[in-house]
Order: sequence, then structure tokens, then C-alpha cells
Amino acid sequence: MENEANDDPVTPAARHAPSVRERLGAMLERGVDAFAPWGARRTLRELQHVLDPAVSEVEGGRRAAGVAGWYARATPEQRRDCWLLMSEQFTPDASAIEAARDAYEAARGTDEESRAEVRLRRAFTAPRTRLLQRFSAFPEGVRFLVDLRAELLPHLKGDKRLLALDAELEELFSTWFDVGFLDLRRISWDSPASLIEKLIRYEAVHDIRSWADAKNRLDEDRRCYGFFHPRMAGEPLIFVEVALLRDMAAGIEPLLDEEAAPADLDKATAAIFYSISSTQPGLKGVSFGDALIKRVVETLRGEFPRLKLFATLSPIPGLRAWLGKNAAALLEATPARARQALAREMALPAVTAPELLAALDGAAGLPEKSLCAHWLLGAAAQYLGRELAGDGRPRDAVARFHLGNGARVERLNWLADPSPKGLKQSYGLMVNYLYDLKRLDRHRAQLARGEIPVSGAVEGLLAS
Amino acid sequence: MENEANDDPVTPAARHAPSVRERLGAMLERGVDAFAPWGARRTLRELQHVLDPAVSEVEGGRRAAGVAGWYARATPEQRRDCWLLMSEQFTPDASAIEAARDAYEAARGTDEESRAEVRLRRAFTAPRTRLLQRFSAFPEGVRFLVDLRAELLPHLKGDKRLLALDAELEELFSTWFDVGFLDLRRISWDSPASLIEKLIRYEAVHDIRSWADAKNRLDEDRRCYGFFHPRMAGEPLIFVEVALLRDMAAGIEPLLDEEAAPADLDKATAAIFYSISSTQPGLKGVSFGDALIKRVVETLRGEFPRLKLFATLSPIPGLRAWLGKNAAALLEATPARARQALAREMALPAVTAPELLAALDGAAGLPEKSLCAHWLLGAAAQYLGRELAGDGRPRDAVARFHLGNGARVERLNWLADPSPKGLKQSYGLMVNYLYDLKRLDRHRAQLARGEIPVSGAVEGLLAS
Amino acid sequence: MENEANDDPVTPAARHAPSVRERLGAMLERGVDAFAPWGARRTLRELQHVLDPAVSEVEGGRRAAGVAGWYARATPEQRRDCWLLMSEQFTPDASAIEAARDAYEAARGTDEESRAEVRLRRAFTAPRTRLLQRFSAFPEGVRFLVDLRAELLPHLKGDKRLLALDAELEELFSTWFDVGFLDLRRISWDSPASLIEKLIRYEAVHDIRSWADAKNRLDEDRRCYGFFHPRMAGEPLIFVEVALLRDMAAGIEPLLDEEAAPADLDKATAAIFYSISSTQPGLKGVSFGDALIKRVVETLRGEFPRLKLFATLSPIPGLRAWLGKNAAALLEATPARARQALAREMALPAVTAPELLAALDGAAGLPEKSLCAHWLLGAAAQYLGRELAGDGRPRDAVARFHLGNGARVERLNWLADPSPKGLKQSYGLMVNYLYDLKRLDRHRAQLARGEIPVSGAVEGLLAS
Amino acid sequence: MENEANDDPVTPAARHAPSVRERLGAMLERGVDAFAPWGARRTLRELQHVLDPAVSEVEGGRRAAGVAGWYARATPEQRRDCWLLMSEQFTPDASAIEAARDAYEAARGTDEESRAEVRLRRAFTAPRTRLLQRFSAFPEGVRFLVDLRAELLPHLKGDKRLLALDAELEELFSTWFDVGFLDLRRISWDSPASLIEKLIRYEAVHDIRSWADAKNRLDEDRRCYGFFHPRMAGEPLIFVEVALLRDMAAGIEPLLDEEAAPADLDKATAAIFYSISSTQPGLKGVSFGDALIKRVVETLRGEFPRLKLFATLSPIPGLRAWLGKNAAALLEATPARARQALAREMALPAVTAPELLAALDGAAGLPEKSLCAHWLLGAAAQYLGRELAGDGRPRDAVARFHLGNGARVERLNWLADPSPKGLKQSYGLMVNYLYDLKRLDRHRAQLARGEIPVSGAVEGLLAS
Repeated sequence: MENEANDDPVTPAARHAPSVRERLGAMLERGVDAFAPWGARRTLRELQHVLDPAVSEVEGGRRAAGVAGWYARATPEQRRDCWLLMSEQFTPDASAIEAARDAYEAARGTDEESRAEVRLRRAFTAPRTRLLQRFSAFPEGVRFLVDLRAELLPHLKGDKRLLALDAELEELFSTWFDVGFLDLRRISWDSPASLIEKLIRYEAVHDIRSWADAKNRLDEDRRCYGFFHPRMAGEPLIFVEVALLRDMAAGIEPLLDEEAAPADLDKATAAIFYSISSTQPGLKGVSFGDALIKRVVETLRGEFPRLKLFATLSPIPGLRAWLGKNAAALLEATPARARQALAREMALPAVTAPELLAALDGAAGLPEKSLCAHWLLGAAAQYLGRELAGDGRPRDAVARFHLGNGARVERLNWLADPSPKGLKQSYGLMVNYLYDLKRLDRHRAQLARGEIPVSGAVEGLLAS
Repeated sequence: MENEANDDPVTPAARHAPSVRERLGAMLERGVDAFAPWGARRTLRELQHVLDPAVSEVEGGRRAAGVAGWYARATPEQRRDCWLLMSEQFTPDASAIEAARDAYEAARGTDEESRAEVRLRRAFTAPRTRLLQRFSAFPEGVRFLVDLRAELLPHLKGDKRLLALDAELEELFSTWFDVGFLDLRRISWDSPASLIEKLIRYEAVHDIRSWADAKNRLDEDRRCYGFFHPRMAGEPLIFVEVALLRDMAAGIEPLLDEEAAPADLDKATAAIFYSISSTQPGLKGVSFGDALIKRVVETLRGEFPRLKLFATLSPIPGLRAWLGKNAAALLEATPARARQALAREMALPAVTAPELLAALDGAAGLPEKSLCAHWLLGAAAQYLGRELAGDGRPRDAVARFHLGNGARVERLNWLADPSPKGLKQSYGLMVNYLYDLKRLDRHRAQLARGEIPVSGAVEGLLAS
Repeated sequence: MENEANDDPVTPAARHAPSVRERLGAMLERGVDAFAPWGARRTLRELQHVLDPAVSEVEGGRRAAGVAGWYARATPEQRRDCWLLMSEQFTPDASAIEAARDAYEAARGTDEESRAEVRLRRAFTAPRTRLLQRFSAFPEGVRFLVDLRAELLPHLKGDKRLLALDAELEELFSTWFDVGFLDLRRISWDSPASLIEKLIRYEAVHDIRSWADAKNRLDEDRRCYGFFHPRMAGEPLIFVEVALLRDMAAGIEPLLDEEAAPADLDKATAAIFYSISSTQPGLKGVSFGDALIKRVVETLRGEFPRLKLFATLSPIPGLRAWLGKNAAALLEATPARARQALAREMALPAVTAPELLAALDGAAGLPEKSLCAHWLLGAAAQYLGRELAGDGRPRDAVARFHLGNGARVERLNWLADPSPKGLKQSYGLMVNYLYDLKRLDRHRAQLARGEIPVSGAVEGLLAS
Repeated sequence: MENEANDDPVTPAARHAPSVRERLGAMLERGVDAFAPWGARRTLRELQHVLDPAVSEVEGGRRAAGVAGWYARATPEQRRDCWLLMSEQFTPDASAIEAARDAYEAARGTDEESRAEVRLRRAFTAPRTRLLQRFSAFPEGVRFLVDLRAELLPHLKGDKRLLALDAELEELFSTWFDVGFLDLRRISWDSPASLIEKLIRYEAVHDIRSWADAKNRLDEDRRCYGFFHPRMAGEPLIFVEVALLRDMAAGIEPLLDEEAAPADLDKATAAIFYSISSTQPGLKGVSFGDALIKRVVETLRGEFPRLKLFATLSPIPGLRAWLGKNAAALLEATPARARQALAREMALPAVTAPELLAALDGAAGLPEKSLCAHWLLGAAAQYLGRELAGDGRPRDAVARFHLGNGARVERLNWLADPSPKGLKQSYGLMVNYLYDLKRLDRHRAQLARGEIPVSGAVEGLLAS
């Protein structure tokens, strides 16, 4: 679901995204001869030329474009060399830092402290910062850096030397892609086909199967919004799909049914966010989702004053894996009487974790009122409403995102996503997270104290 | 002229610019009661609330907007308190820096160096940075900070404690207002009246006297371009006025003559930049002028392939002041024979510096071929073609800008600006700086070696 | 005032409008040699070439552009020849009409009537129609015809042979400029300076004296809307200026006062239309005003739901002239007692019409409660509330326009326009016409019966 | 191919177009009760109300919208009644025509002729014209009339009484949709998906099979342009697909191959128009195609100065049908020797028309050099290069369109469209029509003399 919350840096989108090579193709066509294979030494020299103090920023930018052109045609080894050079050769000047630091310590508490702090900061600004900034000067430069980082990310675990480059890029992107500088735009069936094609490619929660599927999701009873950056025109950085309904949605199928008649907008009182996808792996660590949801809520309230309920219909991607590890303990904690009833229902003398897990694989076929279903709903409530990871944040990736935004766990839905993916990750269960606009910050504070906010209904499942 | 190059932080524009108070007026109207007078203590608390880790960035932005609303109504003293608090209370955590620095030193040369550098950087990022970034979240926030700095700048000399805030703002603006993120737009008579009204207000070189004057400068044989930022819509950050002519312009009057027929565009071969004005004192230190000129040159070449010559017609703002101090020495260095001829022309037994300076005040009335004029032109050539300030850059503020961009001193023009201002600052002289596109970087390198690039003609004046 | 209603074909705007010659100037610059002076014979041939059945419409359009280029340089005599040729040489084919008419008569009442009607219509379509339509094919062509008619109109009275051309143009324009094809656009201080310059030039009711005056009329408490045609981009065909107030306006001065603070929009309940100007004399007979007012009312109601009152503040251009002719009769109809009181106030033994008229010239200086003022208000009520012209429509040109739209005479305002123009045409009086949205058609019906709808207050003046 | 030239009023597009009923659906939802079933009497009354002289045009337009709302829900019988009423009840006033005609005859040759002509025209303007014009006043009105005519057209043959309404609509549309008032817009992959969906639906020459097919036709080496009307936003009235190639295209398959790499734009010298589709059956008789092609040619020449050849790749829709009737005569005219050779190739003692036609059905499998192929090419050359219909225009519908525009028959292509449709209508043959920009009018003149312009190559086929 919301891959906003995804900890894996390479989202599915990354696999389809056109490579730097493709994007800079035109640039290459013309410069083929100009960029014969470079060794690392030449690469270093060219990078240094970009920063040559004797040339203007304008010329520096032109040189950066030249490097980008070469990069587009470089081999994986050459690219890796380039990253290492960027990371290791453009570090701050140690002796300058030393001197500035001493001056700062000396100035502490005096009128000079402020000036000394400024100097220390400057000493610390790595040439790498200026090097990377030069790439903003040409039209495709911002995208070049975003793509470069997307390519770099999977190599970080294996090579710590690249961390400085990665951190520098993340910091740069945090400023460049500050949500204040993004445009919120509605995406509709009247949007460019090239943009809708990207939606189809990037959708990471519920695959868009066809143009007719896309059209259904952009129908008059739906809304889709994305954030765009002026320097990456036509590229949605993140987008959310919303259905306008009369009630909180209990399952995904009616929303994806292309044949279903559009809902009556005049009667809609609920806005259901049923898919959020971020599209640029290279922007990992730069957070848009919270702001997107809140600005979309504002926009929708302006257009539809009757809306009263804002909630998601979300997958529970980590449920099965968690249950695999914790079923035995959960079963242990189940009162003996309930366990016996469960065994009767399953026509077994007694229930063990493996048997239960095996039975749950067929759970989608069971009525919601069965004991087995009831046990699974209780386990899911436990998973979402109680389980925190080591960092004190919710364990489930999607829960982490929405609860972090100030939502609460509102309702568990039986047989809400009977697709193979839905059955596989969460036995077909889905969850609604409620955005209660008046309590967002209260919920965040509650979560900060280690307590996950849940509705009375979910509380009931936990108690039973 | 080009106030781009102005060292005085408060340009004339600053005096006319609507204050923060005016701009946030609407915000105020509603919040009057909410913001009763604050003491410094309350100001600090509100600033800390903006950064409260328990609230989302979205909520933090809302709180920043609240602070901006209060600020618009605050007294000068309250504002000053606010600056000091921002500068002094949101500094980096000294002990965290200490620890990170030790770890960095220890990691030098190992695989961990890169990660340690990242941590040191983070330790060093002052809370002030995050505080200021929160102001980008609401629509008027960027402008709020730019205006705040414009107000702050004149106080820096008197209070060094404010330097850290100033430096932080400058660094933030350098990234936000990176020329890569600016839009180059043509300003014409079809542009919004509200924009042209700003042109009239901001023009800092040759005052725009009326709407008819503005129309003349936007006529079909002229071009005017400005840089705009997406978050300061409708506000030109800097703009340049260009005349398309058949030759290099020798005087400003024909260009400002509203009655003159427009030049024939089909025959234009020269683009003359006759006025550049930057408009936001709060963006001091963020440089746009070089990029503006170069992008305008590119744009013009695309539209008018016949253009061959790109040059300015510029004032020499520092000539009179410099001559006041150096006339005696210059006279000393003048060959005796020439001095005697000069004395004869002036009907004096011998020439002294005071007498010469007095005579020059009436120089505009003299023919260009007079000895007095000749001496003045030579002195001006000396001033522009030889004089460097202590920082190794040209002494004249406008020369500093254009030569720094890679232009050269091309031609001195007698009686080129007979306006009172022109007579007062430079005895009516003006200068053309030539932008020879193929030699910009060569000229910059020459200048970096301490040698000012000049044309043969100016060389001739220097030799005589 | 509303020159919409002006019967004189040449509005003040016509005098300032750039001539066809100016507008097609560029076209001329290049074609100077191509269009040596033509005699009428050559003109006829060129016009016939435009209609040459052997060439495509596209080529015909190109030839029409050629004629327009020639016309721009032609002498007044050549132009007049051109009009006559267009009017007299491209008439319907008489024998074809004859035949078609006979066939039509024969087909009356049979199944063939419909087809016969079609044939008769076609026979009747003059080649002139097709000739003029060819001018729509090139970008400036529509404007060319509109300008041509503006030039033609003043000659109609003197030369009846031109009536056919004029009627053909009017009919063509009625279709082309059908209000359904016009764009309603708001004009604000953010509109192009070139457009606001046109507003200044075209304003026909209360002269715009300066750019500051224009800005005041486009301030936040005002609205200005115009109709535009896609083929005359940047040219408002008609525009209306509206003030948003708390009450019906009683005088024009507060509205034109540049120093006055803007009204509080949140409290505005009245929209006062204080100036309507149509700009294209060449579109005489094509009516926009009614639709403009009604669409503006709709637009305003959407933006400001609190608005309850829609009215004008209008001049009474014909009052003085009418009074000049009718003062004696009115005086005659005044009860003797009232006449005596009037004489006492004027310190005369008895009042005669000439004396009264002379006194009224100084009436603006009198208090509203004076008998003289009262008599004048009664006379104005009579003029506006009772006087119909020979065609059964109100006598006053402005009244004719608003009452024709369904408004009613609401209130007379004493000393409402003390400008020389206001004093001269109506002794400083102005009138409000009320647009009561629920009664527009009822009022139109009433007027169609020969009865002018007036308010109770005006009825009171009439009765007294 | 180009259904521009289609004589059948109902193009395939008509079958898919959303009906009036669908388009006005929203209008209906609200007015359901207001429009109970009407009898013809009530319909007549409502139509008369639209024209009520007592109401303003604005109110008349509102009433017209009401009629349109009713119509959307009306039964086929009610609609037919409505057409008849419009056609028969709003005819010109016979006695007024009579009087005006007499006056006109009397004025012939006098100064009054012009005025009399005007009056006669006015007398002749049927109330029907004004009735229909009222429908332009509301946003969907123009489309309403276009759709109404599309529905009406198939009934014309069966009911001559409707001809007047049809003629009136055609005349109105000729003015409203004058090409001078249309916008030429490029359609690309960046155009709205909703527009590309229409392209897919309307394409009438070579079906667009999928979104990938559409994308291929909008690829970087293609251009697609359409004409749009301001009052039918988002609706292409006609569009043309162009491939930019190095040579004249000889077959359609490479152009429709989605896998083929895009052609190199820098080397393109030929623009091939391979599909033109008009989309609105209701605009029958209003001609856009000629202007579209010529404006597209201009646009392309501006963008690609290297283009030298402008031609079509067109189907020959009428070939098979014509050959069915004329094969015997053609065979007769074939020299005996050639006939014998043909018989040998076909392994028959002698060739008869039925045998030949049967053989031709398998002709696509034959080599181009076979005698059978040669005979067929000769026959096609005869069909396209010699055959005129009764009206003196080319017999083939597509030839009629392009030759009428001034193109010539350039080249016949063997096995150029092996699709079932291509084989069925023309044995797989296609033809290039060449637009030689310098000879368009010469060719038109030649055609007007009854001589079809053909290339030397086609002349060769005719001679052989």
C-alpha cells in the first residue's frame, strides 16, 4: 500500500522508471564523440572543472551538463567510480574546519559567537555541496541527480564510503523538494495521456490493469491529486486516489469495479483514500505524504462542504509475516475456553499454531462470524493496535505512515481485498485509518507516548 | 546603475517596498485579538512551538504563519527581540558537535569516515535552519523571510549577534533562489499593469518618470526580461532593459526619448543593456545578474539571429568621488607639456587639482575634443581600467559587476548622460561594457590575475 | 453615460481608435510596392478575384488579405469607391430570384414548399455575403471589417447606395458577435497594461483621467468586466465598471475619489454599475449590453452571495435639451400656488420659463430642499418616467437602454455629478436604475404596453 | 479514407457519439418533473415562447435551454414533431415578402435599390433563424443543435418537409463554424486522455486498435492536428494524422507498426497525411478539410524547414465497386495481345470479366510485376485519373476531396493496405495524392475544365 511508508528503497516503480541513459538520450546523440570512455582520473578532472573557481556559475552549469551527458553513457563501473569520487574527493577541508572550530570555541559567550558560528558553518560546507548544486543549472539537472540517487541507493549497504554522497543528496533534496515548493494538482481524465500513463506505471498499491481501469479511478465520483515540482514537470512525485462515498469503504472491489455506476456526488459525505504511491525512489527520506493528505483534505472540504469523514482503506502488508512468528504466543494467550471452541469449529482435538495458520489460508472462505475469523481479527487488532517496532513507531509499514500523520486505527474489514496479493499479505483483511481533523495532533502526541490510538470497535476486538 | 553591484544593502527600492506589515495586513485583520502584545518570553515560546517535535510539519507551518501574523503587527523593539531570539536561541548543540567531531577525527581515513562526516554535518545543523524552513510552508512565508531580512540588514553593523541569523537566511535563500529554479519571463506592454507598476517603482538606474516612459521602454524595439520565483509570483527579483539598435549606444537620452520612432528590428545588430535593477534588498548576496544577462543573450540570439554585438551602456557611479581623492596625483603624473596646454586652455598660469575639479564641473559644456575633456576621459579610463579595490576586484561598483561576469571595458562616451544625476556622479560620462561571448571566461581569468580587460580604444586613452 | 444606448454612430471612442491604416501598418511595410494606386476598375477586379470560383477558399482568403493591405494605404476616395463597389456590384442575381420565387409560390402548401424555400433563400444570398465572409479567413480580417464599417457609418446618411453594404455587415456581425460566442472576462489591475490603456481610451461615461484613476476603478472593492471576441483578442467590445457598496450610490464623486479607502467587501450588499462603455462603433446595432449586465450580475452573485441590490448610477444625458423645449409647458402644468412659492423663492414677481431655466443653471448651488430643486426633480421624474419617443421607447438614450433591459427608474439624486459635463447635461442630477432580478420581464412587458416602470419614490415626485 | 469526402451523412462516428440524451443528462436530473410528456401543441407553444418578443434575448436563451432539456428526454416521435414544427411553423411571412419584393422591383436602378434590398432580405429572414440562434445563448446550445442535425439527417430523404430546417441549420453552421473561427491545435501524447479517447472513437480511416496504437500515432515522428471550436471545447471537429518520413510512403503497415522505431526527424523531408477524419455528422456540408490540410502544411513548414514533399497515403474506397461494373468494358478495351498474355498467366484459354474479377480477389498474393497486377494498376489509374461523376467531380469519394483541394494523383501503390478492409475495397491498392504547393490552384483550374491532374507515372499506366 502506501509505499510512502516503504522501508525498502527500491519500490516497484524503480524497476519501470526510464533510466538516466534513456532520459539523456538526446543529449548523447550529439555528443557521442565528445565523450570517449573516461578513466576515473578523467572523471575526477571533469568534476573538478565543474567547480573551477575561474569560471562563472553559468559556465560551471554547462560543464555539469557535460558530465551528465557522459554519465548517461557510462558503464556501471564508471558510474560507481563517479559516485566514489563525488563522495570522497569533495570533502570539507580538515584544517580549515579545525581553525574555524577553535575560533568558535574561543568566541562562545562573546559578541563574536554569532560571526564565529557563521565561519564554522562555511568551513564545513563541503565542496560537494557546491558541486551538486551546479547540476541544478541545466534543465534536466535536477532529474539527473534524483535518478542518480535512485541508482546509488541499493549500493549503500555494501559500500559505506557512499554514505556522504547519499546524505548530501538527501539534504539537498529536502530543501529543493520542500513541500512549500510543490504544486498540488488534480489529475483527471482530462489530464495528459502521458501523465496518466505514468499513473498506471507508478501505482504501487492496487495495480491499474488498463486504461479503462485508470478512467474508472478518475471518474466523476473520484479525485486524484499529485504533488509536482517545477523542475520535474509532468512527473507526479506522489499521488493519492480518493473515492467520494456515503460511508466508510469496507472493501476494495467495489472501488475498482469499472462497471459500477459512479456514486452520487451530492450525497457523498465520506472521502476514502484508497491508494497512495510515491514515485521517485531517489527522493527517499524526503517526506510528502503527510502534507499531501492534509492539503487534499483541505481542497476536498472546499469543493464538497458536506464531507464529514476522511479515512483510508489500507492494506496490512506485514500481517502474515508477523503472524507467522507470533501465532503460537497469541494462541497461548487465548483463553482455554475460546481455544476449545476454535478446535471444535476446526474439527480438531486441539489447535496448534501451524494448524491454525494453515486454516487461516482458507479463511477468506469462512463467514465473518466464524470463530476462526474472529480470532484472526483479534490478532490483526493486536498487530495494528499494540505492536511497536524498536524505534517506538508502529511495526506495520502502512500503519507507521498513517498513524505518524495523526490518524487512528478505525476499523478492520473482513474479506476486503480478495485478490491474490490481498490474501497473501493479510488473509484478505484491510483496515481503515481515520483522519479526525480535530485530533490529529492529539493522536500524534499519544503515539509519541507509545500508545497507538484506536477506535472503540478496535478496542473491543483487543479486549475480547 | 546596476544596483546588482550595489554594496549598500538598502537600495532605493527598499524605501518604497510595501512593508511586511502591509503585506500581511489581511492576516492581521482577523487575528487582532489573538495576538496581544508579546514580551520576548512569549515570542521565544511561540518560536519553540513552531519546532515542537510532537507536531507534524504541516502543523509547524501553521504555527509559523501565526508568528508571521504577530510579527506584522509587532513594534520595532519586538521585532528586534525576535531576531535576537532566532539568532541566539536556536544554535547548534555544542556537546553534540563535540562528540560528532571526535568521532569524525577518529574515523578519518577509514571506511567509516563517510558516515562520520554525515553525522558531524547533522550535529551542526542548527535548529535555526529547521525553524526558518517551517516558514516556507505557508503561501506568504518565503516573502515574509525575504522582507524580514531586508529589515534586518541595516542593523547588522550595529549588532554582531544578528550575523548568524543573517548568514542562515542567506544560505537558505541561496538554495531556494538558485537561478535554476527561477523563471525568465519577458515583460512587455502586455504584462499586467501591477507588474509594470513594480518596474516603475524598482527601476534604480534611470528613473521611470511616467507610464508613457514605461511604455517606451517596453516598445517593440525593446526587450525587458526579469527573473521570477514560483513562490513570489508577480514579483520580479531582478530585471534588465535592452534596446535593439544598429550600433553600440553612445548616450542614454535617445533611449529614453518617448517621442523617438522605434528602431527597425530587421536591421538591429546590437543589443544594448541599458539598465539592470535588482529589487529585493533581502536577497543580498544571492546573485542573479550574471545568469540573467547570459540567459537573456541566449534568448535574444534565438529571436534575432542577426544580433552580433552585446554590450551595456552603464553609469560610472564612483568616478567623481574617486577623482576627488586622486586628481592631484593624476595631475602629477600628467606630462608637463600636457599640463601646460591644459593651463592654456583654461586660461590659467598653471593647473592645480582644485581648479581642475572646479573646471570639470562645467565639463559637460566643453567639446569632446577639448584638452580638459581629453584629460577627464583619460582619468576615467584609469579609474575603470586600472583601479582595483582591496579585495582585488574593480573599484567601481558597476564595473565590478560586469567585469566579474566576464565583460570588458569597451568605450567611454562623452556627454552620454547629461541628467543632474549623470553629471553629478560622473561628469556626464558613461561606459560600454562589451560581452564578447567567446571571451567571457578568458576575461574572467585575466581579471582573476589582477588585470582588467579593456578594448584597444580604452588602452589608447590610458597610454596617452 | 452608457453609450451602448447612443444613437450617434460615432462615439467618442471612434475618434481615438487606431485606424485601419495603423493596424495594418506592418502588412503595408512589406507590400508597399505591391500595391500601387488602384483605380476603381482595378479595385473591382481584385474584389472579383477574391470570389473567383476557380480558387479554393483558402486562396480566396489570401486574396482578401491582399485587398485589406491595399485598403490600409488607400485614399479616402479609393475607399469610398471600394464601398460602393462592394454595395452595388455584388448584389443578388435578379433573374435567379425571380425563378426561385415563382417556384416557391407554386410549391406553397405542398410537400415541396420546404425545398423551394431553401432554394429561394439561396438565390437571395448576395455574392456580397460570400465576399465579406472571405475576410474572416485571415487573422486581422474580422477587425478589418469592423473598422471598415466604423469608417463607413458616417457616410450612410449622405449616400443611400451604401445601405446594402452596411446592412450586410450588420447581419454578419450579428452572427459572428452573437453573445453566445463572446468571453466574459474580469479586468483588474493584474490585466495587461495594454488592455487598461484601452479602458482609459474607451471610457465614455466618466473620463479616466490617469493611471491612478484607472487603478482606483480596478481596486479590490470594484469589479470591471468586459466581453471579448476570440478573433479580436485583447479588445474589449464593451465593459462595465461596478462598485461594491453597502447602499445604493447617491453620487459619483466618492466612487471616483482615488484617495478614498476601499469599501469593506465583507459588508457589501449592493452592486452599483456606474459606467458602461461600448468600444466599437463598427458594431453598431449588435447588442451586448443587456447580456453583459445579466452575466455580470450572475458572476457577482456567485462570488458575493450577500449581494442583494443591483442598480446603476447613471447620467441623464438628454435632460437639459428636453427641458429647454418643455419648460414652459411644465411650468404651465405646475399648480398656481406652487408657481407662486417658486417665484417668492426666486424673488421674482412671477416665474417664466426662461427665468426658471436661467435659475436652474445655478441650481447645483441650491439646497435639495429648495423649491427650485424640487421643481427640477419633478421635471426629471417626468422626463424619465413618462416621456416616450416616437418608437414607443423611452426618450432618454440611457433610460432606453436600461429600461429596455427590464430595469426601473428607482431614484433621482440631487447634486450627484457636479462635474462640468454633469452640470451641463442634467444640472448635476443622476439616476439609479434598479435591476430587480425577479421582475425584469414583468417590467419589460409593462414598458411594451407604453408604461415606464418607476419606484414609489419617483411616483411620488410625479404626483407632487 | 478521408470521410471528409463521405457522401453518406451518417459516418461510423455517429454510431458511437454520445447522444443528446447523454450529454444533457445532468440538465435532466433536475428538471424531471418540470418536463412532463408534451404533445405537439405544447411543443409548439414552448418554441413560440423562446421567440416571445416581450422577453429579452437572455430570457429567450434560458427558454431555449429549457426546450433542450425536454428534448433530451423526448421520445423519437416527440423529436420528429419538434423538427416538423421548427421547419414548418417558423417560415417567413409570405405577405411581407410580397410587399418587400414589389418595393425592391420598383427601386431597381434607383438610389433606393440598396435600402430596398435590405428590406427584402429582412422580410425573408425566417423566424426560424432567430429561433435557432437563441440556442447559442446557453453553454451546451451549439452542441445541442449539431447533435440535433446529426439525428435529423437520416430522415431527410423520407420527409422533404424537413429540408428547410436542415438548410437553415447548415447555413447557421457555415457561419458559426467558419474556419476563420476555428482553432488549429496539435494533438499529442501530452493531450488530455479524454481527447485521445475521442480520437480512438472517431478515427474513420484506419481503426485505432488500442492506446498503444494511439501512442504510436502521436509519437515524436508524427504530428496530429485538429480543428476545434470555442463553443465545443475538447471536441475535435476534424483531425489529420501525419507521418514525417524521408520519402513518400508506399504502404500503411509500417506507419501503424507500434514496434517500429520512430523516424529521424532531422532527416525527414516528406510529410505524409495518412488519415483524415471528420467527427461531427451534424456539420455535414460545412467544409474544413481543405483549410485543415493547408494550415497544417504551413505549420509543418514552420517547424521543419527541410520538408519538401507533402502528400497523402490514401485508400481508394470505390475501386472494387466501380470495377465490378466496368471490368468487361475495360477488358474489351485491352489490346488483344495483352489479353492473351493475361490468359496465359492465368492458365486460361481466354479471360472473361468474371474470371478476372475472381482472380483479382487473390491479387494481393501476386507479385507486382505480374500481368494481372499490371492490369489492375492500369484499371485503378483509369478510375482515379479519368473517371468523373455526373457533377463533373472525380468519382471516387476520397479523390474528390483531395483533387478538389488542388492535389494530383501521384502514385499507385501495390499491396499497400493488406488489411481485410483494404483488400475488400481496393484489392490492397492505395494511392498518394501530391500537394504541390505551387500548383494547387493550377490543378484546381485543370480539374474545373474536366481534366484530372495526374503525375507522369500515372500517365504512363494510363498509356500502357
